[in-house]
Amino acid sequence: MTLKLHNFFRSSTSTRLRAALNLKGLGYDYVPYVLRKGETRTPGYLALNPQGLVPALEREDGRVFTQSLAIIEWLDETHPEPPLLPADPDGRARVRALAYMIACEIHPLNNLRVLGYLGREFGATDAQQAAWFRHWVETTFGPLEAALASGPETGRFCHGDTPGLADLCLYAQVWNNRRFDIALDPYPTIARIFAALDDIPAFRDAAPPRQPDAV
Amino acid sequence: MTLKLHNFFRSSTSTRLRAALNLKGLGYDYVPYVLRKGETRTPGYLALNPQGLVPALEREDGRVFTQSLAIIEWLDETHPEPPLLPADPDGRARVRALAYMIACEIHPLNNLRVLGYLGREFGATDAQQAAWFRHWVETTFGPLEAALASGPETGRFCHGDTPGLADLCLYAQVWNNRRFDIALDPYPTIARIFAALDDIPAFRDAAPPRQPDAV
Repeated sequence: MTLKLHNFFRSSTSTRLRAALNLKGLGYDYVPYVLRKGETRTPGYLALNPQGLVPALEREDGRVFTQSLAIIEWLDETHPEPPLLPADPDGRARVRALAYMIACEIHPLNNLRVLGYLGREFGATDAQQAAWFRHWVETTFGPLEAALASGPETGRFCHGDTPGLADLCLYAQVWNNRRFDIALDPYPTIARIFAALDDIPAFRDAAPPRQPDAV
Repeated sequence: MTLKLHNFFRSSTSTRLRAALNLKGLGYDYVPYVLRKGETRTPGYLALNPQGLVPALEREDGRVFTQSLAIIEWLDETHPEPPLLPADPDGRARVRALAYMIACEIHPLNNLRVLGYLGREFGATDAQQAAWFRHWVETTFGPLEAALASGPETGRFCHGDTPGLADLCLYAQVWNNRRFDIALDPYPTIARIFAALDDIPAFRDAAPPRQPDAV
């Protein structure tokens, strides 16, 4: 199976997916897009993904999968080893909830297109955009840290000692935070898990600076 | 099994979950919170859900599930009939992607707490907040309509003739849109599916105006 990954080195949803593909041991052709240059808004790309977003995963037969979390669940269903979700439903609900805390409460607010709207429509300065970014990270990283620190199911990683769906989101978000110099000091458990993930080649190789389009 | 649903009639994530519980034929105790009065920010509620968000689903043994999409996946895994996702991985990926288009690209931006930040920090007027809300709905409803209109897998509902995860999100979002008078004229397929869903008691009974705390 030859997979084509349409993505951007700095996109945190792309980082999540790269790490998932690496964990599953799946190779892929890396197709980069520069978001700021509108390369995902061309007719060619919109034909592939009408949302004009990255990442998108194109299969050999031409089928295109979109939305990083949907693609990761698909990967996990079609390539079960190593599993990205625990076997028990309660554990799966916990891991998905941790993942969605990041994917539904932080990332959507801190996209390039959202920051652009703030600048354009409300005249938000760079400092105000950075404060916005930081606000939504802090709003969710507080409860996320608490959940991880107090949860008996937390192990070396977000859930036990096997990296999974929540870890993919956490790892990518921490990389994203660095663009706005958000330190991890108030979040010791998140910091510990990030460091453990960064020791794993599948994660480290998915990090933004290691991608061919990194600038 | 006695379930307690901590929720708010107008919250669209609550609406999704109510419809899912109804489809599964699961009864629940309805526990309402008034978001604007800070009732989800009390120490009691934060002990239940440190994010201070609704919905949360409390099981008889005291375990609390959070994040509507994680809860819905859990419901589907523990109560498989009727299924909320198709059986084939490609179909599941399509349904999840449609659901996440709404859950990750529209809803997080149009929360009460986000609109509050815009008013507080950028002096956004009611009209500007409404324009923001409308912008993010239109940005995603365009491609969503296109995906549904052109997808051979679209049936009476988002995927075939059985309502599922994507329909739960679509139904709740259309209700949410009504608060800002967003008409469905540009989105005939979404409008058709919404009408079909609104014919199903499990959905109709989950609609905001039918809840005990509706005002």
